Amino acid sequence: MEPLLRNVLRRVKPTESERETARRVADGVVRLVNRKCAELGVRANAALVGSIARGTWLRDEKDIDVFILFPEHLPREELEREGLRVARAVAGKSGQERYAEHPYVNMRYRGFDVDLVPCYDVRDPSRIKSAVDRTPHHQRYVQERLTDELRDEVLLTKAFMRGTGVYGAELKIQGFSGYLCELLTIHHGSFTNLVRAAAGWKPGTAMGADGKYVEDQEFALIFRDQPLVVIDPTDPNRNVAAPVSLRSFATFVRACQDFLSSPDEKFFFPRRIRPMTNAEIARALKSRGTRLILLAFRNPGLVPDVLYPQLRKTERAMIQRLGREGYQVIRSDVWANSMCVVLLELSLWRLPSVRTRLGPPVTFPGGDFIREHMSSKERLAGPFVDDAGRLVFELRRERTSAEECVRSAVQDSRSLGKNIAEAIRKGGRLLNERSMGGLLRDRGFRMFVSEYLQRCLPWYR
Amino acid sequence: MEPLLRNVLRRVKPTESERETARRVADGVVRLVNRKCAELGVRANAALVGSIARGTWLRDEKDIDVFILFPEHLPREELEREGLRVARAVAGKSGQERYAEHPYVNMRYRGFDVDLVPCYDVRDPSRIKSAVDRTPHHQRYVQERLTDELRDEVLLTKAFMRGTGVYGAELKIQGFSGYLCELLTIHHGSFTNLVRAAAGWKPGTAMGADGKYVEDQEFALIFRDQPLVVIDPTDPNRNVAAPVSLRSFATFVRACQDFLSSPDEKFFFPRRIRPMTNAEIARALKSRGTRLILLAFRNPGLVPDVLYPQLRKTERAMIQRLGREGYQVIRSDVWANSMCVVLLELSLWRLPSVRTRLGPPVTFPGGDFIREHMSSKERLAGPFVDDAGRLVFELRRERTSAEECVRSAVQDSRSLGKNIAEAIRKGGRLLNERSMGGLLRDRGFRMFVSEYLQRCLPWYR
Repeated sequence: MEPLLRNVLRRVKPTESERETARRVADGVVRLVNRKCAELGVRANAALVGSIARGTWLRDEKDIDVFILFPEHLPREELEREGLRVARAVAGKSGQERYAEHPYVNMRYRGFDVDLVPCYDVRDPSRIKSAVDRTPHHQRYVQERLTDELRDEVLLTKAFMRGTGVYGAELKIQGFSGYLCELLTIHHGSFTNLVRAAAGWKPGTAMGADGKYVEDQEFALIFRDQPLVVIDPTDPNRNVAAPVSLRSFATFVRACQDFLSSPDEKFFFPRRIRPMTNAEIARALKSRGTRLILLAFRNPGLVPDVLYPQLRKTERAMIQRLGREGYQVIRSDVWANSMCVVLLELSLWRLPSVRTRLGPPVTFPGGDFIREHMSSKERLAGPFVDDAGRLVFELRRERTSAEECVRSAVQDSRSLGKNIAEAIRKGGRLLNERSMGGLLRDRGFRMFVSEYLQRCLPWYR
Repeated sequence: MEPLLRNVLRRVKPTESERETARRVADGVVRLVNRKCAELGVRANAALVGSIARGTWLRDEKDIDVFILFPEHLPREELEREGLRVARAVAGKSGQERYAEHPYVNMRYRGFDVDLVPCYDVRDPSRIKSAVDRTPHHQRYVQERLTDELRDEVLLTKAFMRGTGVYGAELKIQGFSGYLCELLTIHHGSFTNLVRAAAGWKPGTAMGADGKYVEDQEFALIFRDQPLVVIDPTDPNRNVAAPVSLRSFATFVRACQDFLSSPDEKFFFPRRIRPMTNAEIARALKSRGTRLILLAFRNPGLVPDVLYPQLRKTERAMIQRLGREGYQVIRSDVWANSMCVVLLELSLWRLPSVRTRLGPPVTFPGGDFIREHMSSKERLAGPFVDDAGRLVFELRRERTSAEECVRSAVQDSRSLGKNIAEAIRKGGRLLNERSMGGLLRDRGFRMFVSEYLQRCLPWYR
């Protein structure tokens, strides 16, 4: 396995000159921020954090994170106002304001993607005021423990996570953050040790602040339903792996199992998916014999971490509603750039006009149930008693197509993400496999559909 | 309620002259059997049993049961041979041999339907050799307890059971036998008391040999899954209500509840169902929007108590198979006269070509599962991981129509009743709602379909 990993490392590790460039650009940003603070009379100072600061960045990750640290006692509104003032001054016209827990500014700067993030300089990490305040502490913790060898191992871990599709804590991915990759590698001493351990992980696997595996019932209670628990060494109340979904967890564990049984570069560098032509898409859909329903609307201008949970919520609400009415969704997914799409693939999209309405078992009075339906215009047959002794009516179904069901569900804005409800009201459209041609002109959407139809764990492509 | 019940009684109780006729005909049969025994040198004697013997027959029930009692020590083959010899001699050409546990002979005689049933004259009812040997003991038990008033109450009970569709222990009905009606009436003292008690029955209701309700865990174990237990006073190991299905049980209990809240003659004399015309049937089916599959074949010449369990078994096997392959049966039923029909009504009869094949969760090795399907020509997508962390393949489905599924299930004769498997092989046909015109020429089948489409508890018609 060693030559394989050396090869991988050669491809993912920045060269000496690339590191030099990154360091120079990053230092430039830090100096710029400090200068603007002085000019504007703001009492704050800049700190370089993230993977470039720790030397654990993959060569094609060109992200620079500069935090603007404010004193702990400052009121929150003041921090946000002053922080933005500095960041805007630094970024100038090229800057773009974004919102996570705090507002921050993103800019392109000499080929890098730079985030300027105001936060509190909190001494005691258990008393932080918002999630970003933890980052400087993570920075310190990791820096103190990383040797050059360990940095290489972290790169392998990250490249493996990325190649198997589970890299990134953002809500679009729900995978492993860079910090989590670093911690896991530090805890296990090397990439290979981590893979060997993870191949045996079960949902509920937990590591304490010292990196040792624990079997603690208390953990199971506090971090309920979290497939992986990795206690933050800088804050024992926090699970660094909280964003990891069961899907990402299981994908990573499978990847480790499969990698051990046949190590291959494809785990780090999977085959790319080729965008399918319209004809290929039509053929694939025909061979599936299903029906697509696409709920499409303009992106209401939310950051991905706010948008994706709302898209997923909308997706779940539709699936639930369809299921409750008797339709079957075989698979579904969501996609977004300037447009948003909730894609529902139905294996059952037409229902007969008759539906069964079960009443109470014989141990309960059935009078009301019978009165309610006996005189109903919907009644086709009944009441009669089924094999289980329950009263049954057969009634006429209100809606017999999944499209109608989705159309009606869309009216019920409570079940949708709140910004999405509005975006749909302003101009949502219901498309199907025949009417999605317009969307397919977007290369991103075409890639999404191509990936959807050929879905496969990346290392099996 | 009293005038109502008096009216009912007037309609169901045989007149004095009807009783005189029945008694005379029955006595004639008994004498005839005894004479033939003497002539043929067979050591046996006749006994009149059943509702005519006890004066508990409804006026349009014209059934005479004459048992031919043989000594206990006789070998079984000899009993069957000698019994049939006597019965055949009595019945002559009009007789028809039938098979229950023993063979017996049925004949039309002066407007009555007469069964001549050989059995053992067993002293101790707990040592009987076959189910029919119990009948003479039941006869004695009931005769000793019935007063004239109680006979009227039994008639009401029977008429109520008949009117609500649960009268008869035969496997076609799975309801309440005449003897059970008598016991329940004796135990409760009157029809009205029985109805009041039964309105509160729950599945698992049990009465001891003395007719008192018991709450005995032991009963629940011995008579597992039997909704009603009524211990036979002549044999404490036997549940007289064993044939009562949960459906019949629940129907009767509902009928009692509904009758108490609004007593009406319709519980005893429900509206008859009118046979529907072809156009009405087509219209009803269209408004249901379902698809019928009818498995039709010639009746292999079995008595109903043998035929119906096999038809039900076949029906269940088809429903299970269809369900396993993803189709949905909304309702089904069986019918027989010279033809047999298993009717399946499908609410889902077409499936897309893609199907989901779930693999093991991440805690189990997935290698074999992946290898099996990875190279399969059926693979459309996968392997990927679902939200629950399970491996998934999407495969091409072999059969996409319920007809194909039934056609293939019919090949698998193990799942069918054994005589039915052969009857189907000899010339079974698969029909649907458009091709069932030939069957509809049979008035019995037309009634069956009419009842099926308008199915309703009789007192709600």
